[in-house]
Amino acid sequence: MNHPAEHAAIQHARRPFPAALLESLEAHFGDRVSTSEAVREHHGRDESPFDPQLPDAVVFARSTEEVQAIVRLCAQYDVPIIPYGNGSSLEGHLLAVQGGVSIDLSEMNKVISINPEDLTATVEPGISRKQLNEALKDTGLFFPIDPGADASIGGMSATRASGTNAVRYGSMRENVLALTVVLADGRVVRTGTRARKSSAGYDLTRLFVGSEGTLGVITEITVRLYPQPEAISAAVCAFPSMGDAVRAVIETIQMGVPIARVEFVDALAVRAINRHSNLSLRESPMLFFEFHGTEAGVKEQAKTVQDITAENSGTDFDWATRPEDRSRLWNARHSAYFAMLQLKPGCRAVTTDVCVPISRLAECVVETEKDLLGSSLPCPIVGHVGDGNFHVAMLLDPAKPEELEEAERLNRRIVERALKIGGTCTGEHGVGLHKMGFMIDEHGEDGIAVMRSIKQALDPKNLMNPGKIFSFTQ
Amino acid sequence: MNHPAEHAAIQHARRPFPAALLESLEAHFGDRVSTSEAVREHHGRDESPFDPQLPDAVVFARSTEEVQAIVRLCAQYDVPIIPYGNGSSLEGHLLAVQGGVSIDLSEMNKVISINPEDLTATVEPGISRKQLNEALKDTGLFFPIDPGADASIGGMSATRASGTNAVRYGSMRENVLALTVVLADGRVVRTGTRARKSSAGYDLTRLFVGSEGTLGVITEITVRLYPQPEAISAAVCAFPSMGDAVRAVIETIQMGVPIARVEFVDALAVRAINRHSNLSLRESPMLFFEFHGTEAGVKEQAKTVQDITAENSGTDFDWATRPEDRSRLWNARHSAYFAMLQLKPGCRAVTTDVCVPISRLAECVVETEKDLLGSSLPCPIVGHVGDGNFHVAMLLDPAKPEELEEAERLNRRIVERALKIGGTCTGEHGVGLHKMGFMIDEHGEDGIAVMRSIKQALDPKNLMNPGKIFSFTQ
Repeated sequence: MNHPAEHAAIQHARRPFPAALLESLEAHFGDRVSTSEAVREHHGRDESPFDPQLPDAVVFARSTEEVQAIVRLCAQYDVPIIPYGNGSSLEGHLLAVQGGVSIDLSEMNKVISINPEDLTATVEPGISRKQLNEALKDTGLFFPIDPGADASIGGMSATRASGTNAVRYGSMRENVLALTVVLADGRVVRTGTRARKSSAGYDLTRLFVGSEGTLGVITEITVRLYPQPEAISAAVCAFPSMGDAVRAVIETIQMGVPIARVEFVDALAVRAINRHSNLSLRESPMLFFEFHGTEAGVKEQAKTVQDITAENSGTDFDWATRPEDRSRLWNARHSAYFAMLQLKPGCRAVTTDVCVPISRLAECVVETEKDLLGSSLPCPIVGHVGDGNFHVAMLLDPAKPEELEEAERLNRRIVERALKIGGTCTGEHGVGLHKMGFMIDEHGEDGIAVMRSIKQALDPKNLMNPGKIFSFTQ
Repeated sequence: MNHPAEHAAIQHARRPFPAALLESLEAHFGDRVSTSEAVREHHGRDESPFDPQLPDAVVFARSTEEVQAIVRLCAQYDVPIIPYGNGSSLEGHLLAVQGGVSIDLSEMNKVISINPEDLTATVEPGISRKQLNEALKDTGLFFPIDPGADASIGGMSATRASGTNAVRYGSMRENVLALTVVLADGRVVRTGTRARKSSAGYDLTRLFVGSEGTLGVITEITVRLYPQPEAISAAVCAFPSMGDAVRAVIETIQMGVPIARVEFVDALAVRAINRHSNLSLRESPMLFFEFHGTEAGVKEQAKTVQDITAENSGTDFDWATRPEDRSRLWNARHSAYFAMLQLKPGCRAVTTDVCVPISRLAECVVETEKDLLGSSLPCPIVGHVGDGNFHVAMLLDPAKPEELEEAERLNRRIVERALKIGGTCTGEHGVGLHKMGFMIDEHGEDGIAVMRSIKQALDPKNLMNPGKIFSFTQ
C-alpha cells in the first residue's frame, strides 16, 4: 500500500549492499547476522500502514561496542543504519527506504543500574517500559511514561514519546537525563550526567531525544523515576459534548489540581471500548481521570474534579478507588486502540497525532468532528486532553486505495488546522515518513535548514536512518 | 583582576571594528548606538569577578527586526555580537573578549501575550522575571523560575537558569516552550509551538536554551506558567550536620512529597543571614522549605516533612503559614548572597555551582567542608539541595591575587570531585568564561567535538558571543 500524500518521501534509491560488508558482519557477529526474508520482513515494517521496505541485513547487537563496530563497518561501505527496538512505531520509522542494516537492539534489554536515592535508572535501549517497571517493582519507584504500546525505552527516547500521564510527569523530553550514543562515524558520546540539571553547554541529550535515529544510535539511557504514589484513584465522567469535557479539563488544570492522567474518548471510541471490554459506559464523550497522591490528597483531587465536571454538564461521575475497579476502567482505555480496530474487521488505522494549545483544543476537535461526519470511514477519537494531543484513528480497508486517500485527506486537513492555531503535526508519535510533508509548514524553511545543517554536521554521509523527518541529500 | 586558572580562555585578540560598521549602525539606530566609555564599561562586565572587557559599541534594540539588522551588519564586517539582558551573569558571559557589539535588549521588555487557558506567556527577552510576575499578578498564574537575581528571561533562557524551586517546577529547560532566534547570518527561526509537547523533529528550542548566545540571539520566549497555589506554607529546620539535612531531603523526595522549594544553608551562611536580616536562627546547618498546594495539602506536606526531619535529628522545626512570616524567612534566604558578601567588607565572591546526584550530595558537601576548613577565605555554603546543586561563595579581597588563586584552587577541587561522582560543573549559572576549563573533563573530547560541529554549522565565522563555553576557531 502506498501513501499518495507522502509518495515523494518514500521514493528512494536503495544503496548498494556490498558482499564484503556482509562478510565482515558475519565474521564479527556469526549467526547474529540474518539476511533471511522473514527476519528482514519483520524489521522492515512497523505498526504504520506503510508496506514493508526490507533492510539488506539484520544484526542483533549486545553492547555499545558491538553497535560501534556495526556502525564503523557500515560507514566504511556507505551503508545505511536503522536502529530497531520493539517495532511499535506508527509512522514508518523502521522502513529501510534506502536499504541497509537494521540493528536489532532487543537483546540489549538490561537494567544497568537503579539509583533509588537519585530516582534514576540507567538502561539499555531494548528494554521495554513494562520490563523496566517490572524491574522497579520492589523499589517503591516507577517509570511513568506510558505510550500505550510496550515500546522500548530506546525507541521512546528516539521519538520523544509520551502518553497518558504526560500531563503530570512530562514526556521523554523531560525524563531522559543522559544518553550514550554511537555517532555516524563510530564515535561514542555520553551526553548529560546523573545530576538532575546542568547548564554545562549545549543540551546534547535533548538533541538526540526525538532525532529518530537520524543522528546516532542510542545505546544507553538514564531516565528519571518517581515514587509510587501512596494512593491512586480513578474516575470517569460523561459529557454532552467535547467542548464541555475540554472546558472541565482546562478548569481542572488552571486550579492546579495535579491530575496524573486525563483522557478523552468520543462516543464511537466508547462504543468500541464497551464491545471490546464488555462494559456498559454511556456512549457519549467521556473523560477518564487518574489521581496520584496521598490518601487524603486523591480524595480532595477527585472531589474538586467532580465539582468542576458537574459545573460543565458532566454526568455519571464514577469514582473507583479499589485497584480492581481502577484496572477495569483503565485497561478499557488502554485497549482502546485495539478495540477501535475491531470496529471494522480487517482494517488498518491511519492515526493522526496533532497537539494544540489546550485553549484551542475544543474548537479543534469540534471542527475535526465536522470533517469526520462527512467521511465514509469510521473515525473514533481518543486524546491526551491535558496536553492538547488527540488521535483520530481512521479505519480503512487496506485493499481500497480510495480509503487510504480519504484518510490522508482528512489527516492533512486536521494537521493544517492544528498548525494554523499554533500546534504541531505530531505530539508524540514522531515524524517518521508520514509527517515529513508537514515539516516545512510547521518549522519554516529556515527551521528545517537549521535541522539539516545539524544533520550535515553529524552525519554528512546520511547513513543514520536516512529518509526520515526531513529530506536530506548529502 | 585576572583568573589565573582560566587565563588561556580569556586571551583573545580583539577583532577590528570598522568605522564603516559604526556609521551604518548610527545611520540605522541614531542615538541608540553608544560608544561612550561608561556605557561600554557597563556592558562589558557582569557579576563575575572578571575585569571588564569592553565591547566596541552598544546598540539598544527594540524588535526582532532590529536585532536582525544589527546581526546582518556585524556579519558583513565579521564583528562579534554579545546579547545583553540584565547583566546578572556570574560567569563572565558578557565580557567582549574579542570586542564587538553588545546588543542591549533591556528595551525589549514587553509581554507579547498571556494565554491563561494554556498556562503560557510569550515575552521579549529583556523582561525580568519580576516584571513578568508583576504582569501576571491578576491572572492567578505565576512564572516559577527564580534564580535569586532579577535576571532577564532572555538571559535565563540562554544560561538554562533555575533556582530555588526547580525541585518542583524544573529549570528553564522544562519551562521554555518556544523561541524566536536571530541566527548568525541574520535568518530568524521560530522554534517550537504553543503546544505543550511535540515530536516534530530536532528539539531546536532546547538547543538554544543554554547556548549562552553562542548560536544566536533570542528575541522572543514562550514560557510555561503555573496556577498560583491555593495555599503556601514555609518551614525552617536546624540539623547537627549537613549529612542529616540531606538525608531528610532524600527521604522527603522519595516519599513523593511535592515540596516546592528546599534550600540548604550552612552555619556560616546562617550567621550572615542573621546579621543581615536581623534574625536569630540557630547557627547550624539548616533547611528552608516551602510547600505549595491546597490548604489541607500543605498541612499534610508540612506534617510529613516535620516527621522526616525529626527522624533525621532535625530540631527547631518552625512552620510559618502567615504570609508575613513566610516572607521574613524566605526574604532572608533570598538575601543570602548579599548577606554573605557582608561577611567580608569590600570582598567579591567566586561562586561554585556544582550539581551532583543527590545520593552523593552529603558526601560531596562534607568533603567540601573539609577543604574549606583548611582555607583562609570565608566560604559560606547555600544549596538547592533537592536538585543536588550547591554554591560555595568564596569571599576574597580583589586586591589580593593570592586569594583569587586560593578560590580557584578550591573551585577546581570541588568541580573535580563533582565530576568524579557523576555530576556537572555548573547546575544553573552556565559556563561563560569561568567553567570552560572543565568542559572536556565533563563531556569528553567527543562531546565537545559534537558541540563544536554544531557551532560550526550555525556560526562558522564565530560571531555569536565568541570565546564562551568552549574554545572554537573558525
